Amino acid sequence: MLIVKKFGGTSVGDKERIFHVARRCVEEYRKGNDVIIVLSAMGKTTDELIAKAMEITPNPPRRELDMLLTTGEQVSVALMAMAIDSMGVPVVSLNAFQVSMHTTRVYGNARIKRIDTDRIMHELEIRRIVIVTGFQGVNKYDNYTTLGRGGSDTTAVALAAALHADACEIYTDVDGVYTADPRVVPTARKLKEITYDEMLDLATLGAGVLHNRSVEMAKKYGVQLVVRSSLNDNEGTIVKEETSVERMLISGVALDRNTARISVIGLKDQPGIAFKLFNLLAKENINVDVILQSIGRENSKDISFTVARSEADEAVEILTQNKNRVGAASISCNKSVAKVSIVGAGMMSNPGVAAKMFEALYNENVNINMISTSEIRVTVLIDEKDAERAMNAVHGAFGLEE
Amino acid sequence: MLIVKKFGGTSVGDKERIFHVARRCVEEYRKGNDVIIVLSAMGKTTDELIAKAMEITPNPPRRELDMLLTTGEQVSVALMAMAIDSMGVPVVSLNAFQVSMHTTRVYGNARIKRIDTDRIMHELEIRRIVIVTGFQGVNKYDNYTTLGRGGSDTTAVALAAALHADACEIYTDVDGVYTADPRVVPTARKLKEITYDEMLDLATLGAGVLHNRSVEMAKKYGVQLVVRSSLNDNEGTIVKEETSVERMLISGVALDRNTARISVIGLKDQPGIAFKLFNLLAKENINVDVILQSIGRENSKDISFTVARSEADEAVEILTQNKNRVGAASISCNKSVAKVSIVGAGMMSNPGVAAKMFEALYNENVNINMISTSEIRVTVLIDEKDAERAMNAVHGAFGLEE
Repeated sequence: MLIVKKFGGTSVGDKERIFHVARRCVEEYRKGNDVIIVLSAMGKTTDELIAKAMEITPNPPRRELDMLLTTGEQVSVALMAMAIDSMGVPVVSLNAFQVSMHTTRVYGNARIKRIDTDRIMHELEIRRIVIVTGFQGVNKYDNYTTLGRGGSDTTAVALAAALHADACEIYTDVDGVYTADPRVVPTARKLKEITYDEMLDLATLGAGVLHNRSVEMAKKYGVQLVVRSSLNDNEGTIVKEETSVERMLISGVALDRNTARISVIGLKDQPGIAFKLFNLLAKENINVDVILQSIGRENSKDISFTVARSEADEAVEILTQNKNRVGAASISCNKSVAKVSIVGAGMMSNPGVAAKMFEALYNENVNINMISTSEIRVTVLIDEKDAERAMNAVHGAFGLEE
Repeated sequence: MLIVKKFGGTSVGDKERIFHVARRCVEEYRKGNDVIIVLSAMGKTTDELIAKAMEITPNPPRRELDMLLTTGEQVSVALMAMAIDSMGVPVVSLNAFQVSMHTTRVYGNARIKRIDTDRIMHELEIRRIVIVTGFQGVNKYDNYTTLGRGGSDTTAVALAAALHADACEIYTDVDGVYTADPRVVPTARKLKEITYDEMLDLATLGAGVLHNRSVEMAKKYGVQLVVRSSLNDNEGTIVKEETSVERMLISGVALDRNTARISVIGLKDQPGIAFKLFNLLAKENINVDVILQSIGRENSKDISFTVARSEADEAVEILTQNKNRVGAASISCNKSVAKVSIVGAGMMSNPGVAAKMFEALYNENVNINMISTSEIRVTVLIDEKDAERAMNAVHGAFGLEE
């Protein structure tokens, strides 16, 4: 068996954790398996490196920032190799140049294009454990790139796909994927299996144990993932195309507090207004999420939408500067909101799922601000203070705790 | 003009120093010159990385240690590129993979074999300042190597040679090469020029502002070096084949306290004994310096030699373990010794230089333990307590202070 194991920054945060991971991987190797380990930078290293860059200049060139950040994973893999070597097992660490991890040319958010598997295959053949730097690649100009948030997950999936690995295990600090965040919903239950699509919606909606792009890539190449804890031997959650268990109506309830609602009131009711509005935000790279348009009074219309809470102030500022251009009467912002979503592939063939959710919220006296749905998801925007009650009510209504 | 400028770890130790170096290099660039900057790891980074490795295992594989250490310079070059970019000057940082700095395969102490200059030439052509990681290379297995102590100097010289640079400037925390260490000999004088050979002997003998291998390489490829301070604009010292100034009898007096004398007494006077003795030490990679053999009493002989003080205990242990094998009566070690050397290309054509040195020491009542000479050098081993007096006496006797 060829097994790819990915460990995040906290899993390699200090000597004890490094040896914990090392022992785990050596155990797998000694069973006769080929083992590839993908590592993130240790603990807070990436943040510390970014802070160093910011000390030099608030606007470091992205190319040089990636040059700086890629050192983080290189330190991790070298130390892990030393740990495994000290246990008497042949091992080699490889960075993006040595793997030949080819990416698109964009810095800070590159995508993997191609992996030359020769070197890795050779190292596996001579029975070495191979440790690969996550999160990083090399573009066609022979410059380092990084893959953006959660990039190490993507590295692991890409390697599993390129090498036709038998398993791709993503180790995190939780046991797997839950029906809801156990810190919010105490009765939450770990899922044995979940589909790629459900996982994608859960990741987007703030329940993410896996980064979106890694799940997209896993789906595209049919790489079956296992999400499990680096701290224990519990079974974890399998992410795959079709779950074999009896399909639940919904798989999970997700909570996202990192959201703010912006309302633009009294827009002229004429074509192109929405385009003008959102184009302004798009140009500044502000991601807009749920959008709601409603008829205002006296031949005007109101548009409300949500953005990440950290981008709310910037969005309001841009809109205020362009108030006359888009013809808005007033702009308001509410940061005390939260998104609650239910996700489930079973939803598609079952009408009334949304209604059931709304009923549960009504019974708890939770007011719904905005609603947005997709084929396998229903999202509501509510007051943040209601979030925990809402989560538990919805979780209970769908019988997820059983 | 194409100028290679090398800055050590203290010169890039913090934000202020980084910008100081950046301004200096930008100034050179704005005169219309092509500028290549070679950097070491910041401040104590390399030592910190080694400590991290030692925390994992006392015997890290050298290949992985180099993988770890090379991150140090990569951080330096990225931050320097950010600083120069923030000043509005086009810049790019390159690591050993990007430069294609090919070395021999040995880890920890590799030698540069070949540099593919294409990438650097291209970057210079589009008028970028190029910043290169010192101290590191890539071997034929596509693995990182490091060049050993002072490796960044060697990187700078190798680049200057490969690119036929017009100047190679080595910036340190001193103004240049002095006739003696100014902390020991207050009347020491900065040299305007010095030959490669003199510099080599001074470096070996503990006065080293430049690492030996970089001077050897400079000599081999005829790269003229300038050693100058990163803190001021003083002229520095030029290192070249033939000095153009009127030749001094000697160029400098060097002091090396990092030495210990080991005496092996009562060896049998038969062939092969010296070989056996030093072979034992060579196998453990202990470098032996000055060797003195003398006739002992009753058909035996005594051998004394010096080693680096840090290796003295190990050497004594090895010899004690093999006492019977080499047939020694006793082994003693003296760590309170120091080497004082005079170096000068003018010595070759002037007999009596050694005698003049001995006379100066005699006048100061300094006892000489051992003597060793080469064409351009005379070294004496004395008690460490006499070192400063000896230095000043010799420095004065040759009129170096004028």
